[in-house]
Amino acid sequence: MEETLRKALAEKQSAVDSQGNAVRALKAAKAAKADVDAAIEALNGLKLEKASIEKQLQATVSGGGDGSLNREAFRQTVNNTLERRLFYVPSFKIYRGVAGLFDYGPPGCAVKSNVLGFWRQHFVLEENMLEVDCPCVTPEVVLKASGHVDKFTDLMVKDEKTGTCYRADHLLKDFCNEKLQKDLSITAEKAAELKHVLAVLDDLSSEELGAKIKEYGITAPDTKNPLSDPYPFNLMFQTSIGPSGLSPGYMRPETAQGIFVNFKDLYYYNGKKLPFAAAQIGQAFRNEISPRQGLLRVREFTLAEIEHFVDPENKSHPKFSEVANLEFLMFPREEQMSGHSAKKIPLGEAVSRGIVNNETLGYFIGRVYLFLTRLGIDKDRLRFRQHLANEMAHYAADCWDAEIESSYGWIECVGIADRSAYDLRAHSDKSGVALVAEEKFSEPREVEKLVINPVKKELGLAFKGNQRMVVEALEAMNEKEALEMKATLESKGETEFLVCTLGKNVTITKSMVTISKEIKKEHQRVFTPSVIEPSFGIGRIIYCLFEHSFYMRPSKAGDEQLNVFRFPPLVAPIKCTVFPLVQNQQYEEVAKVISQSLTTAGISHKIDITGTSIGKRYARTDELGVPFAITVDSTSSVTIRERDSKDQIRVDVEQAALVIKEVTDGRRTWADVWSTYPHQSSASADDEL
Amino acid sequence: MEETLRKALAEKQSAVDSQGNAVRALKAAKAAKADVDAAIEALNGLKLEKASIEKQLQATVSGGGDGSLNREAFRQTVNNTLERRLFYVPSFKIYRGVAGLFDYGPPGCAVKSNVLGFWRQHFVLEENMLEVDCPCVTPEVVLKASGHVDKFTDLMVKDEKTGTCYRADHLLKDFCNEKLQKDLSITAEKAAELKHVLAVLDDLSSEELGAKIKEYGITAPDTKNPLSDPYPFNLMFQTSIGPSGLSPGYMRPETAQGIFVNFKDLYYYNGKKLPFAAAQIGQAFRNEISPRQGLLRVREFTLAEIEHFVDPENKSHPKFSEVANLEFLMFPREEQMSGHSAKKIPLGEAVSRGIVNNETLGYFIGRVYLFLTRLGIDKDRLRFRQHLANEMAHYAADCWDAEIESSYGWIECVGIADRSAYDLRAHSDKSGVALVAEEKFSEPREVEKLVINPVKKELGLAFKGNQRMVVEALEAMNEKEALEMKATLESKGETEFLVCTLGKNVTITKSMVTISKEIKKEHQRVFTPSVIEPSFGIGRIIYCLFEHSFYMRPSKAGDEQLNVFRFPPLVAPIKCTVFPLVQNQQYEEVAKVISQSLTTAGISHKIDITGTSIGKRYARTDELGVPFAITVDSTSSVTIRERDSKDQIRVDVEQAALVIKEVTDGRRTWADVWSTYPHQSSASADDEL
Repeated sequence: MEETLRKALAEKQSAVDSQGNAVRALKAAKAAKADVDAAIEALNGLKLEKASIEKQLQATVSGGGDGSLNREAFRQTVNNTLERRLFYVPSFKIYRGVAGLFDYGPPGCAVKSNVLGFWRQHFVLEENMLEVDCPCVTPEVVLKASGHVDKFTDLMVKDEKTGTCYRADHLLKDFCNEKLQKDLSITAEKAAELKHVLAVLDDLSSEELGAKIKEYGITAPDTKNPLSDPYPFNLMFQTSIGPSGLSPGYMRPETAQGIFVNFKDLYYYNGKKLPFAAAQIGQAFRNEISPRQGLLRVREFTLAEIEHFVDPENKSHPKFSEVANLEFLMFPREEQMSGHSAKKIPLGEAVSRGIVNNETLGYFIGRVYLFLTRLGIDKDRLRFRQHLANEMAHYAADCWDAEIESSYGWIECVGIADRSAYDLRAHSDKSGVALVAEEKFSEPREVEKLVINPVKKELGLAFKGNQRMVVEALEAMNEKEALEMKATLESKGETEFLVCTLGKNVTITKSMVTISKEIKKEHQRVFTPSVIEPSFGIGRIIYCLFEHSFYMRPSKAGDEQLNVFRFPPLVAPIKCTVFPLVQNQQYEEVAKVISQSLTTAGISHKIDITGTSIGKRYARTDELGVPFAITVDSTSSVTIRERDSKDQIRVDVEQAALVIKEVTDGRRTWADVWSTYPHQSSASADDEL
Repeated sequence: MEETLRKALAEKQSAVDSQGNAVRALKAAKAAKADVDAAIEALNGLKLEKASIEKQLQATVSGGGDGSLNREAFRQTVNNTLERRLFYVPSFKIYRGVAGLFDYGPPGCAVKSNVLGFWRQHFVLEENMLEVDCPCVTPEVVLKASGHVDKFTDLMVKDEKTGTCYRADHLLKDFCNEKLQKDLSITAEKAAELKHVLAVLDDLSSEELGAKIKEYGITAPDTKNPLSDPYPFNLMFQTSIGPSGLSPGYMRPETAQGIFVNFKDLYYYNGKKLPFAAAQIGQAFRNEISPRQGLLRVREFTLAEIEHFVDPENKSHPKFSEVANLEFLMFPREEQMSGHSAKKIPLGEAVSRGIVNNETLGYFIGRVYLFLTRLGIDKDRLRFRQHLANEMAHYAADCWDAEIESSYGWIECVGIADRSAYDLRAHSDKSGVALVAEEKFSEPREVEKLVINPVKKELGLAFKGNQRMVVEALEAMNEKEALEMKATLESKGETEFLVCTLGKNVTITKSMVTISKEIKKEHQRVFTPSVIEPSFGIGRIIYCLFEHSFYMRPSKAGDEQLNVFRFPPLVAPIKCTVFPLVQNQQYEEVAKVISQSLTTAGISHKIDITGTSIGKRYARTDELGVPFAITVDSTSSVTIRERDSKDQIRVDVEQAALVIKEVTDGRRTWADVWSTYPHQSSASADDEL
């Protein structure tokens, strides 16, 4: 569609150009006025047609009319509300803030605490995970082993005059998007090229990125100054541990490493049984080059990570059947490659058809789906996208992201990866401590083993002082090399053999080594467990939850739009407000008694005894997402109002806290309560606004 | 006592010396053997008397016999248990760890999570505090304003050969303590001097510390090499925000600053009403020079801080009466100065007698007492110690530490300080944003105000181009200066006046300025609130809780000592274990059903289906502080055992989870349950160990 339009536009442009030339030629030749007028009319006609195509193209590239504009406006409204009600604010605001750092104010902090509490209940408690709590300050050796010191970088370019830094890929991405959306004059070929650049952006080397930036003439966005070549910038906050200045350290970029380095202790704690999972909630830090997108790309954030250790030969999961019937949007690699969109697939089918690599990975995908939707994430704007081959680390067996659609597009909020044995092996190698599990066989098993026996006497005669190096090289052969050597020695009697430590080939004869396969009895199997890692970006989930929960409705008078967050009670920052209908000591006493009962029941609530109209007080708490309000309008019974339906029931003073407790705990639904208690007429306080 | 003994010892020593001389003189004079023998006998008698005094002195200085030895042994046992059961372990152990960094393993992490949950309930929820969550990464300007960049330092000395760093005051402290406890030969005067050094240790300047280290000849503990002069080392972990290298930042050393910089927003959020409190739980960081004392002095730790903002003219507290009758160990400044020990004082009396500065401070002291004792801190090993004048910042109105006695001595675990307006003023000054509160008067008040009116015409004639500077200097006078000038002008007609911006005195005559007092009407009062700050070191509280909860009891067979943590259910890492008595499918099914009910009820628990004897399984969970165990020994009813009494009751399978829920929630006591259900005979499973 877009391509067709671009081609039509180019054709129309050249038609306009040649008609323009024709008009000029007629004028130059002093042609008859009627002829000139006719030619001009034709030119204007072509221009109108061109404008019409331009309009269609504009609509196409900006994603269906003014959708992006609506998204911006929606985001603005949500964020204004969030900042005004202190869900979050830029950190250190009185000092003009720091990009990428945000504070959660009281309601945001309560939402976060509720999300983390539910995470603990849903994952740690229900799955009997081993929770740990490790420091953020991490010595260099740990992050050297994990690869972060060498590879946790983004490519950066500098404004050559001011020194301001930018992410190289972001500049290129912005340039391509801008060009595609706003420059209607580019050819279909150029458009295709820019789209290709966007598609392979993550794979471009430093040199390729630099070349593209030069080719497109991209300059610093703020100053239009030339840019430096791209160079890698490590995203970890560096520091120094202790006073000597000799122990470099970093603020951890993820919490996972704290679990890996403790694997041995945790495995023993679990009675040396697999599978088991460890979990950690904590701060992580990434020194982003130039953070944007508000709460979605920040320099410090809360991660909740699970490392599920499993036998690589058995990735089945005993509770998989509990999630097998779930059906939700999945976006497998093949669908992405063939340009299709996400589609609903039953999880059991996705695993049995091999779309999802194994049951354990599938089980966690299902549990993540339940977690997110119970928080209030809209299931129609949640999809599980499989990583493409070029996105996945070479060691990963399979990887899926839970992506949530927000006004910024689809946002990766949870990564669920089967990382195989990579992390444990990396720390085993670096630390010299074996991070392995054992499987004791009930009966010893016979295993065929390759045995390489260098004949030291012969080797000593042949190689003298180099004997040890040759012996070690022979013993280090893998099975394939050894069997090839065996065959060659048997057929030719000798073979050339590269000894790396000597830096040369030597001749090995048949008498110098025996290579054979032997049957051995083994009593156990020692192996490095695979790890399946669901990793949750808590701040991103919360931000998407804010967007999915937000809606507006007209006030009763119809003269203004009121903001509401439809948080489920589980998530709501305050579960209940208590309002004396009018300022009156008796009502305030009742309100205090109810407040005391709510406190005892552990329900977070707020009393509002201001003289503001009850309607305004409802509106204020709707904007905080408070699901229930108790209005004290007599000394014996009170009104309880539900936020979204605005339905109201009458309940005895003594029972009010209990009812709130039941509906916020999830032990009763509002519908159930609604059918039990007398209803309050709609000609109620809500009208007073 | 100690002084008397030291004097007696010195006298006895000189008696021994002179008797020794006498013996030698007799021998030299070849005196009669009987005389020599008698003299020797007298000498030996004196030596015995000296030894006896030495023994008494040793006992006195080492704090009552072998107490310190017992404390060390006790600590070793507790810590071995804690590390073995993964309550905590040194971080990054496989890489040989980093001093001052520790991981909480599964049970420690659960205890921490329970302590923080209760803190939120007890403070944030019950007091309606505004909880916030700010980043750890903090830009320099904030910590410059708070004083941390300039003053958050410890004095450090370096081993001049190896470069190893030590805290200067710790070395001096260790030297004095060692000398006092182990060197019995020092004089009473010397002992008094060393004690004086210990008392003023915190007040010593860098030069004084250095001089003492030189005077006492203190060398590096590990190498005995000479030490450098002391110099300040800033305890904050420094880093750089963003890629430019131009924005220094630090990992916050406390969470409080995040609250102060948000004061204005929080005050508005609270409807511009005082008092209110904000709270924050989070990580804080101190790059200790050479951390020791395990969990008590670490480089990264969790703080829970409250900033209660209050009108400096009204520090009463509406709920003070709720804590006024509490009576616990308090250690006021006067008692410390006069060498007395802490004593029980009713809190109401402490406030009314002015020992505690104000009701709000007193209220928090009471709430902290309740918090700590409900966690399981032994009230007899908890005291509230008032800061001495030399410990308090100049701006602080009053300051009390909740100190808990552990094997390391009395440990400051909570600081409760009235910091007056210091912090808000510091950030107002630095940021230029007014951090103030307003009190609207119900009726306007008449206030006498000083008015300075420079007469610009006269000043212009006299000072020409310097007029503006003179005007500004006149207007900037404080009340005292202005009234003095007024008096001088009235009596002498002119006066000399220093204009700083001109750097010289000018002559001001009567016609150049009018100074008067006028009555003005004011509608409100604008002021900087005082802040009362209870600040909790969560890791320290948890460590002390471990020590206070630990005890040992003999196994049934009496052949070994078993470890128990007597955590209250509120704190216990796991509330309940479920044991099938024998390995048997039926019992395991019942155990699973009960486990499911416990999960639904949100009770953390563990099933143990190993074939280990039930007694051993009890012992294992006693060591984790699990308060209740359900043993499945039939398919219809089960045994519930309480950890400390080892009492057992019989309960129907369907009711087991409910009973556990009630006793762990605190809705029923064990005594109550014990009186309701049939008892299991003592000839029970517990004997099987």
